[in-house]
Order: sequence, then structure tokens, then C-alpha cells
Amino acid sequence: MAYILSVFAVRNLLVLSLALNVSLILRVLLLHDSQDGSFNGFFFAEQKEEALATKITRLSSSVAPSSSLTMAEGDEDRVINLDHGDPTMYESYWQKKGDETTVVIPGWQFMSYFSDATRLCWFLEPEFAKQIVRLHNVVGNAVTENRHIVVGTGSTQLFQAALYALSPCAEAEPISVVSAAPYYSSYPLITDCLKSRLYKWAGDARSFSKNGPYIELVTSPNNPDGFARRSVVNGSEGILIHDLAYYWPQYTPISSPANYDLMLFTVSKSTGHAGMRIGWALVKDEDVARKMTKYIEINTIGVSKDSQVRAAKVLKVISDNSEGPNEGDSFFEFSYRVMAKRWKQLREAVQQSGLFSVSDFPPQLCMFLNRVFEPQPAFAWIKCEGDIEDCESFLRGKKILTRGGKHFGVNPKYVRISMLDRDKNYETFVRRLSTIRS
Amino acid sequence: MAYILSVFAVRNLLVLSLALNVSLILRVLLLHDSQDGSFNGFFFAEQKEEALATKITRLSSSVAPSSSLTMAEGDEDRVINLDHGDPTMYESYWQKKGDETTVVIPGWQFMSYFSDATRLCWFLEPEFAKQIVRLHNVVGNAVTENRHIVVGTGSTQLFQAALYALSPCAEAEPISVVSAAPYYSSYPLITDCLKSRLYKWAGDARSFSKNGPYIELVTSPNNPDGFARRSVVNGSEGILIHDLAYYWPQYTPISSPANYDLMLFTVSKSTGHAGMRIGWALVKDEDVARKMTKYIEINTIGVSKDSQVRAAKVLKVISDNSEGPNEGDSFFEFSYRVMAKRWKQLREAVQQSGLFSVSDFPPQLCMFLNRVFEPQPAFAWIKCEGDIEDCESFLRGKKILTRGGKHFGVNPKYVRISMLDRDKNYETFVRRLSTIRS
Repeated sequence: MAYILSVFAVRNLLVLSLALNVSLILRVLLLHDSQDGSFNGFFFAEQKEEALATKITRLSSSVAPSSSLTMAEGDEDRVINLDHGDPTMYESYWQKKGDETTVVIPGWQFMSYFSDATRLCWFLEPEFAKQIVRLHNVVGNAVTENRHIVVGTGSTQLFQAALYALSPCAEAEPISVVSAAPYYSSYPLITDCLKSRLYKWAGDARSFSKNGPYIELVTSPNNPDGFARRSVVNGSEGILIHDLAYYWPQYTPISSPANYDLMLFTVSKSTGHAGMRIGWALVKDEDVARKMTKYIEINTIGVSKDSQVRAAKVLKVISDNSEGPNEGDSFFEFSYRVMAKRWKQLREAVQQSGLFSVSDFPPQLCMFLNRVFEPQPAFAWIKCEGDIEDCESFLRGKKILTRGGKHFGVNPKYVRISMLDRDKNYETFVRRLSTIRS
Repeated sequence: MAYILSVFAVRNLLVLSLALNVSLILRVLLLHDSQDGSFNGFFFAEQKEEALATKITRLSSSVAPSSSLTMAEGDEDRVINLDHGDPTMYESYWQKKGDETTVVIPGWQFMSYFSDATRLCWFLEPEFAKQIVRLHNVVGNAVTENRHIVVGTGSTQLFQAALYALSPCAEAEPISVVSAAPYYSSYPLITDCLKSRLYKWAGDARSFSKNGPYIELVTSPNNPDGFARRSVVNGSEGILIHDLAYYWPQYTPISSPANYDLMLFTVSKSTGHAGMRIGWALVKDEDVARKMTKYIEINTIGVSKDSQVRAAKVLKVISDNSEGPNEGDSFFEFSYRVMAKRWKQLREAVQQSGLFSVSDFPPQLCMFLNRVFEPQPAFAWIKCEGDIEDCESFLRGKKILTRGGKHFGVNPKYVRISMLDRDKNYETFVRRLSTIRS
């Protein structure tokens, strides 16, 4: 309730009190309360908050005089939600590409559970598999030779498939799952969701010292802080999962093809198609790939064929354009430029404000773009300097929704901010950030 | 190895021995062995078996004289896989419908994680939700008023979401999950897959007598045996999940709209689009619907938008045609007729053989088709009569792959056979079945 009051201030509450539909307001406020109780650090609660805010704004504007309407809906007054990494920034590129990536699916196609029953991963569409290999070869960001491809409903499902496949069955106690803080906020939630006796979340990899087998998650570039990473635990029985969702040239220089045992990728962050829910794993060990496939069979009996077909088309167009004569208009050139511009804007805003800090990254040669540049991550990992102890709350007071450090296993002085929102939201955000003073 | 030998007999082995690519044969045989070890009663192993059989047939035919080729590939000699319920029977109907259910998706659409952030289930496409409600109203098979809709990656994911939502968090020991035998063979596998401390499989509901809370799965019509069902446990603390995947007019008379707390449906068995991986739940309790949504958020961050859009189109066409002037050519009329024909053929084949039996079902009035008929389930539940103790092995000897009773918690004298395969496979199956003698 405190937040609702702070967001909509006294002026807006007066407007609200004029509304005829009192029951709707009550419902909205009640809903808000019940969500606070179930908030779990993922992204649902915040998004809902923004949606409800929009709802109330609409409601108030329907009864308010036009001057209030302009103020309530004005850019400088609205809630900006950069809590989750919804990659809507990419829409404009694909819109410009027009029909190139349009798919047409007749009603009688892709009806079977099976894509290719002779494959280890029997629900993987052959054309999608082909385009995955091609794109990695074009970009040079991962070794695909002697790898099994397993498709998943996003890399989130593949992460769970990997935990299932890598957990020793015979052990009396669950295997420890660790990652160096700051780690992706969903890892602990996903790992402990069903209170499995196969595996359990064991926190920050840097302070992990238990003997015996463990699984270490290495996200590189890292979510939330954007740094390149290697495993940090010094145990002899470690099993590694490499989450390479952000190892693409718009975010970081591609120095060499990644060559690990188990690598996860997703279209959400590479091409921006989060709504497809498509990810893939490159897996060296056949038995691990088979068990991952088994998990996805038990969990969802495979993965949407429609989205695989669509993803195949998108990957194909990216590869075609990266190699063809229109290279300058290629997907990675476009997205590299947008990210470069946004990071420049962010650093300027941070400097103007004086209240925040962001890391510098060492520049490196990108073998794909053939250019030296500093990493420009999909998330900004911002620190509130000075007296501000809870950066998430502080920015929420400025109507900027972010995800605080505690969700990533570190200090609440840090927040993670999505850099992948639509232009309009991002522009408003940097403008607002630059004007924040203590 | 025993099965490989029986299937490919001495003649085919001689042909195989002529093949130049000896290493491929060895690999195929080795693969087969490794699968036997990991067989878990779902459907992968058998499908793979058929695929490998096809591979070997292709290999042998590439070096065999044409007469062998004809014999090896002849209808009466090939493996018929009716183990899993792949609904490919429906392809011909949708093919006939041509462009009516074709979807066109431009590359820049449905990119966000979100479908409608103001909805409880924020990843549910509004048009799909609308068409779900409409179809249930047209068919009259489920109450949709005062229900929350949760979309899932097939009803398999929704079943897990329901277990997550219904399990008491605070209990020291996992809640028991039961279902009356014969029960869907995947229920135990799914429930115990991750060895959750929230819930555990507790077997046949009829012999369950533990005090305290439990979850009972009621599949009606039942998979595998096709009978209409009600809950059977007599406890006071039971929570019910109704799996109504087969409560559609092609399979059973629709007597009244189902009106339960938590009902699961899927396009796989209603429209035949298994490859979409789309299911939906109708949920009375808001808190349960919210927790189910949370599970799907953690498990896969939502459900493919592309498949939801496609499913919406298919459901719309079914509703349109059921109400319009072409009612006689509607989807349910077509599929009712195919199922009626297939069940007639099956009963004749069973009678001719004399070695098997199938249940009779009481006829009832279908309020939707306005016609009295006997249930004609999506699976046939066949009993081997006389001395045959293991019906699955017996039929495998006849190159008919089925799923034996032990996977459903009952006697191996029973097998489940899919009635939803393509015409050609089904015709070959009934012809072969009718000629089997002891």
C-alpha cells in the first residue's frame, strides 16, 4: 500500500476518488496487496504492478480533466519497468525486415509429437537444428562439431533438463548447485521449486567448500553484471553448465568459439524472440543429451514445433544477411549499434546524476564484427553510491522498477536494469536517471 | 538383441550381412542395446525401435535384390507402432480444410514474454482464451463461467503445475498422488521424476487408505480403458484433478458440461495438434490458478505464443463450422465417423481372431451430436485371452508395438493400442489382428 500511495500521490488519489467505478479500484488495490504476499523475485509481480498502475491511470484519466490527463500520462510521470529482460528493443529491426521472416503454417502441418524419430532429440525440427549449427559457424561463438543438440522451451527448461541429467541418481543426498554471486536471480528459484531430492541450491560458488560432487553454473557474459566468467570452485568433482545466453556480438566481443561440455543458448536474448520460448543446448556427452531429452519428454513431451519452425526462419535470415552483400544492415550490426548507443547514453546519465556507478569493461577484439569494443551487456548493473542502502527501493521512488542486489545474492546497493526495452522506455529512463540528485 | 533377431529374422540378417557399411549396422545394434537399459515406459524407446527398424530396412533394401525389398517393405511385414497416442489420424481432415486454419506470423510479432500483463495468467494469448471459452460453450463439455484459464505446454505441464499448486507447503512429508488403475502410464513417471518433497506417487487409488490429504487424478474418459470415471478414494481431505483430455464428442457422448474445480484439456487429443504442445486448465480457485501460473513461469517462463495463436485459429474454425451451415462437414462429425468406423473394424477383427477381447460400453445420448452412441475411445484396451500372459510381448512378436498393462498398474494380459494413427497404419493393424490365431 505504501508504494501505491507514493506512486499515485495525493493529486492522483483525488482524481481517483472521483471515479464512479469504486469496486474496480478496490479490486485493483486488493489484487496489489495479495501480490505483495506472493512476490518471489522473478518478474511477475513487478510487471503486474506496472499493469495495474496503467489500469488506474486509465481509470483516472477517464474521469479527470484533460490537464490532469496530460500530466498523468506524461513521459516524466509514468512507471518505467526495467525489472525483467523483455527484449522488445528488437521489434523495430524485425518490423523493418518485413516479410523476410514471416512464417506460414497450414493447419495440417507439424501435428505429430515427432520431428525426427531417428534423432536422439526426437522432437527437434531438423531445419532448426541445421540453422543452429549454421549460425554458430557464421558467428563463431560456439563449437558445434561432435555436439548433440537438445531443443527446449526456452533455456530455462534446458537448465532444469541439465540438472536432471547431471544429478547422480544413487546419491543419498541432493547434489549442490552453485553459481558465483551475483548470479541470475532465477537459478535458486528454479533449482528449489519442487524441493527435489536430486539437487539443491547451495548459493554463492565463491564460498562453497563442501567435498564431493557439485554442479556449478557459469553464465558468461554474466547476468546480471555482464562480465566474462570461468568456473570458480576448486573442487575435483565439479560438473559445469555454461549458460551462454548473452555470448553474442551485440553484447560482447566474440573472441573464440566456446568449447564446453554443456552450453545453453536461447532466442530470447540472441534474436529477441522471447515469446517463442525456444532455447537449445549443445551437449558433448551422448548420455547427458539423452537424459536431457528424457526430462523434456516427461516435462512437456517435446517443444512447440511452430516456434521451432519460426526460430529456424529467423536464424536463417540472420545468417544469410551476415554473410550476404547487405552485411551493414545485418541483425548483429543493427543490435550492436543500438547497444553501443544505449551504453553511451547510460554512462552519460550516470555521470550527470553523480549518484550511481557502473563498471568499465576491458575492450577486446570481436572476431565476428572485426572490431575492438567494450562489452555492452543486456543488463546494466548499477550501484547506488553514498548513503543509499536499498537502490531498488530508491529507484522505485523515482518510478523506475529494477531488480535489487539481494535477488542476485549480493548487496542491495546494486540493481539490475534491462537494456533491451523499447526505444521510448529506454530514452525516458536515461533522461530520468540523469536528473536524479540525492 | 532377442527382439532384433525376431524382427529381422534370418533372411534379413543375410541381406544385412551384404551391406558395405558394417560400422553403421554395429552402431544401430549398439544403440538398440543401450536403449533397452534406459527404457522407462513412456514412448520414446518404442518409437526409436521403429525408427531403427526403418533404418535397417532402408539399409538392407539398398543392397538387396528388388524382390527382398518388396517383401521387407510390404504392409504385412512391417512394424506397426501403436504404442503412443500420436493423433496423426486428424491430418487428413485439416489437409482437406486447406487454408482455413493457416496462420501467418510476421517476424516482429509475439516477441515479448507477455501476452496480457493485466491477466492472472499473463502469458495466455487473449484470442486463445476467447476461443477456448467459445468452443466449450459450443460443445457443452465444460463449464467456463467463473473459471480462470491457465495455458500450458501441453496438459502434461499443467498436471505438474496443478501438483505444485495443490501440494501443501508446510507438510513434513510429501502429499500422496493416486489414480485408480488402470491409470495413465505417465502419471507415476511425471510425479516422481524429480523426487520432489512436495508430492509423491502412491499408486492405485482403489487400494489407498492413508489418512490425511491426498491428490486424486480422475481421467474421464479414462486413458487407457475409455470408461467414464468419478473419484474413488473415500477420504475427507482429497483434492481432485480432472484430466478431461478425451471428453470430446468424437470419443464419448457429451452428457453434460463438466463442472469440477480443476479441469485439464489439450489440443493434442481434441483437434489432433500434438506438435503444438498446447493445453489449458479451467480452474475455479484463484489462488490455485495463480500458483499454477507461477509454476509455468518458473518452469518455462510461459508458453509458446506462436502455438497459442495457431491453436486459437484451429479452435475458431471448429466452432465456426460446428455452428454454421456446413455442420455435416464439421470437425467433430468427421472425427466421430472415423472413430465409429475404426471401432467397428476393431470389434470385427477381435471377433475373427478369437484370441482377444475388448470392453463393451453403454450407449448414451450426446447432447452435442444429438445422437445416441457407445463411447469409441482414443485407445483400445485389449485383453489377450487364454494362455497368453504377456500380451505386449505376444503382439510385438506379430510386429505390433503396444503398451502393456504393467505400465498402467495392472495385469500384463492387457495392452493399450492407439486408435489415432494414420489410416494406412490402422488398416494394416486391424487386418493383421484379425488373422492372429493362437
